Amino acid sequence: MLTKNTIKQIASLRQQKFRKELGLFVVEGRKMVEELLHSQFETVGLYATEAFLADYPAFSDAEIVSVVQMEQMSGQDTPPGILAVVRIPVQGDIKIKSHFVLALDGIANPGNMGTLIRTAEWFGISDVVCSNDCVELWNPKTVQATMGSLFRMKVWKTDLAAYLHQAKNEGKAVYGALLEGEDLFQLKAKPEGIIVIGSESHGIRPEVLPCITHPITIPRVGGSATESLNAAVAGAIIIAEMTK
Amino acid sequence: MLTKNTIKQIASLRQQKFRKELGLFVVEGRKMVEELLHSQFETVGLYATEAFLADYPAFSDAEIVSVVQMEQMSGQDTPPGILAVVRIPVQGDIKIKSHFVLALDGIANPGNMGTLIRTAEWFGISDVVCSNDCVELWNPKTVQATMGSLFRMKVWKTDLAAYLHQAKNEGKAVYGALLEGEDLFQLKAKPEGIIVIGSESHGIRPEVLPCITHPITIPRVGGSATESLNAAVAGAIIIAEMTK
Repeated sequence: MLTKNTIKQIASLRQQKFRKELGLFVVEGRKMVEELLHSQFETVGLYATEAFLADYPAFSDAEIVSVVQMEQMSGQDTPPGILAVVRIPVQGDIKIKSHFVLALDGIANPGNMGTLIRTAEWFGISDVVCSNDCVELWNPKTVQATMGSLFRMKVWKTDLAAYLHQAKNEGKAVYGALLEGEDLFQLKAKPEGIIVIGSESHGIRPEVLPCITHPITIPRVGGSATESLNAAVAGAIIIAEMTK
Repeated sequence: MLTKNTIKQIASLRQQKFRKELGLFVVEGRKMVEELLHSQFETVGLYATEAFLADYPAFSDAEIVSVVQMEQMSGQDTPPGILAVVRIPVQGDIKIKSHFVLALDGIANPGNMGTLIRTAEWFGISDVVCSNDCVELWNPKTVQATMGSLFRMKVWKTDLAAYLHQAKNEGKAVYGALLEGEDLFQLKAKPEGIIVIGSESHGIRPEVLPCITHPITIPRVGGSATESLNAAVAGAIIIAEMTK
């Protein structure tokens, strides 16, 4: 039986403060919940409306809630009708498995963060290392933008400069997306390395720059007056080109 | 002198209904307003706070408004301090100038719409043809995501299927991003053509499909469980690869 208190608690998970305090986050929508239930993540609550369950009886494990209760819990303007409360996993040690690693330096926009994770998975990158000040992974907009990749990818937050410094010392190739660098499309294919994408407003920050062994740039077509690309777009073009 | 009525009218421009009715839209932020003032667009009102003008005296043409007035007009949580009201230009006939044309079929997310326009400009595409049901170009989130490209690009809304049908009959190459098609990275470089990107949820729709002369696909790395890429990301990877 869903109490008012539980509803209030779930609604509070829209705020980072309460996600941190309770160690929980929210996942909404059929597709996302499906991916969640196939993952290693621990689902601590699953709620659906009757209308949703009539369409998707496979989710019969969910507790039935009224439309009004769902509206109170949901962070979306149009609640999709199914909502899960999920335990935030404890971050383990960084163990890289894929040939390429995506490193994110200060990504602030949750849509970009989620999209970068989703794109990395498409191109076979399973490991993402983020600076500590990247936007929170459990932000509902980040979760949504990953379209489920979140549940399969390894994402760590760490002191990125220290991590990259060590990687460089170990002889790893550290590619950084910069406005000046080697033409991405002229690069000789490399079998592995770390791809660093900087923040939307400041790019790769000064303390990370010395760790970049291969500055690369996405050439702009002559005459174009745009100053930059969206961070998720720049990341995608580089990931696609490096891993193809 | 800024009246309460004007403030109310400007605030109403957050809604498509009033943008349509008044033929106006809003642009906010230093960078965006700068790009606007360098463009052919007609600015019908320019407002800034004293604090903003102290930092950026170059905008002294702006009418000074109080912080409270700016908050009432602005559609942003943290108003950047400068806001312009701009006339929506009348759409002329489609006249293609760039070698490649970006065609958008039912893009619904304003962030994707704006990002696609911004990416196109980076890669030298100046012409974008959209289906009539694409999200509105003057939506504040679309405007913001273009990062100013909007003011330099040519963007038309039209019956996309009819447009592409004619293009195909004229012998133009019409590339469509599909889940099944020729491997994008194996394509022989083509000097020109139309690149069609479908909507976030349904891809390229059935009535547009017969117009595609070259179905192309972005190969997914084996074993990846992602089902798709974000529309703006898919568009960017294709545009980059085709125009490089």
